[in-house]
Amino acid sequence: MSRIVYVNGEYLPEEEAKVSVFDRGFLFADGVYEVTTVLGGKLVDFAGHAKRLWRSMGELEMTPPCTEEELLAIHRELIARNGLEEGMIYLQVTRGAADRDFAFPPEGTAPTLVLFHQEKVIAESPAAEKGIRVISIPDARWGRRDIKTVQLLYPSMGKMMAKKAGVDDAWMVEEGMVTEGTSNNAYIVKGGVIVTRQLGTEILHGITRAAVLRFAREAQMTVEERPFTVQEAQAADEAFITSASAFVMPVVEIDGARLGTGTPGPVATRLREIYIEEMRKAAV
Amino acid sequence: MSRIVYVNGEYLPEEEAKVSVFDRGFLFADGVYEVTTVLGGKLVDFAGHAKRLWRSMGELEMTPPCTEEELLAIHRELIARNGLEEGMIYLQVTRGAADRDFAFPPEGTAPTLVLFHQEKVIAESPAAEKGIRVISIPDARWGRRDIKTVQLLYPSMGKMMAKKAGVDDAWMVEEGMVTEGTSNNAYIVKGGVIVTRQLGTEILHGITRAAVLRFAREAQMTVEERPFTVQEAQAADEAFITSASAFVMPVVEIDGARLGTGTPGPVATRLREIYIEEMRKAAV
Repeated sequence: MSRIVYVNGEYLPEEEAKVSVFDRGFLFADGVYEVTTVLGGKLVDFAGHAKRLWRSMGELEMTPPCTEEELLAIHRELIARNGLEEGMIYLQVTRGAADRDFAFPPEGTAPTLVLFHQEKVIAESPAAEKGIRVISIPDARWGRRDIKTVQLLYPSMGKMMAKKAGVDDAWMVEEGMVTEGTSNNAYIVKGGVIVTRQLGTEILHGITRAAVLRFAREAQMTVEERPFTVQEAQAADEAFITSASAFVMPVVEIDGARLGTGTPGPVATRLREIYIEEMRKAAV
Repeated sequence: MSRIVYVNGEYLPEEEAKVSVFDRGFLFADGVYEVTTVLGGKLVDFAGHAKRLWRSMGELEMTPPCTEEELLAIHRELIARNGLEEGMIYLQVTRGAADRDFAFPPEGTAPTLVLFHQEKVIAESPAAEKGIRVISIPDARWGRRDIKTVQLLYPSMGKMMAKKAGVDDAWMVEEGMVTEGTSNNAYIVKGGVIVTRQLGTEILHGITRAAVLRFAREAQMTVEERPFTVQEAQAADEAFITSASAFVMPVVEIDGARLGTGTPGPVATRLREIYIEEMRKAAV
């Protein structure tokens, strides 16, 4: 069955969902995006994603294509038209279509807004039962990873390096320290202390990260926001990643070294439960 | 008048030239490109651009959409259909359209091929008579600048920084050394010696750069391929940039410091003449 996709005001069958070849998202990667999870037909932390989207657009001096309220309405319309129960809504805003020029197009150029959904089992994930295995790779991305742009070729290459190594994902390392996963934030746990890299231009400001750290602190867990090495991670009791579409996902092996018992640890497991419970309650 | 644009086997009016919103060029910047100059209705150094394109695709394990011969035929058809005398042919290859996933799509996914032209006066450029002014900015791009991908947001931002500073372009600096311009290679001349950064993953392997260095050596000029600082550039006798669409373009000011007399220098001027003369002869 064909999906219904939103493109610049129209709801279209996916085969007809197209953008101009002059779109700056296509020619210059001049676009930003968000992925919001849907649970039980409702949006998880929409407000958090909208806030980050507006920040991304602001950092790039991009004109918002609509208001936050309108964007929420489009998300809901897409869920309704596609009968989506569980999965993700992907949204992308670009600086719009204009003749090719490195300089930004003239003011008044209409931004492009595209949304589509993907069905996915997220809450009852088999991967979360087993945990995932990762390798470390150099972080070769650009310098402003706090802006959620579509310059995703390197993370995509990183995912393929992981695949070729027979594992599930890759953690990126810069100047000896882990930055984050290819499409998620990275955490280790040692002696009950959760360690994850502090916010900065080096990592994405994860919406799930913010919620999970809040829940961890509310549950009286200790959180240290600082960089860590692969060696420290390999010596940790447990590890995990967070992202909008993986929630909290245990990591059981790093560069071939098994963590603890090689099964999901108690902290990751508990945080995953809390996150899903809280997000089901708060979904809109 | 509407341009005729090539998209995956069809020649279309530009208003109808579209790609799927699921194209990986749009979603992941998973695409590479080339810009070939047209002089007198003929292609300048097509073979050089084709060679680099195949290298870019090879580095990214991307399937070529056609043979080099077919690509040349499409370029020529586009020139003919649009009556192009002078300007550029832009071409972009992406990994094709597939449901969104960081992992590369299944083998057999058809790559996307898009070409369009832009009319531009290149040989008799007024800018070349005056020279351009540049500022220096940090180089915040990803680590594989030798692959000509469409991850061009930072160069685009750099062009805007230059515009806001009231100048023409920006040179990027990494670890104290100039890498290159936002969309061109950078050179200085001191005591008759031409200095430009050596090839590596830090800079684009300019097709115009290769030709210009060859012509310089043939004209008994001395070329040093090594990094240089902004301070060294400001103290140079002259400076210039090269790119497919700017040829050899004199630089007369760097970060507010005027070079020499503040007018195009003899080396840049001579190399521009040689380049245009040789390329007119060799165009296909």
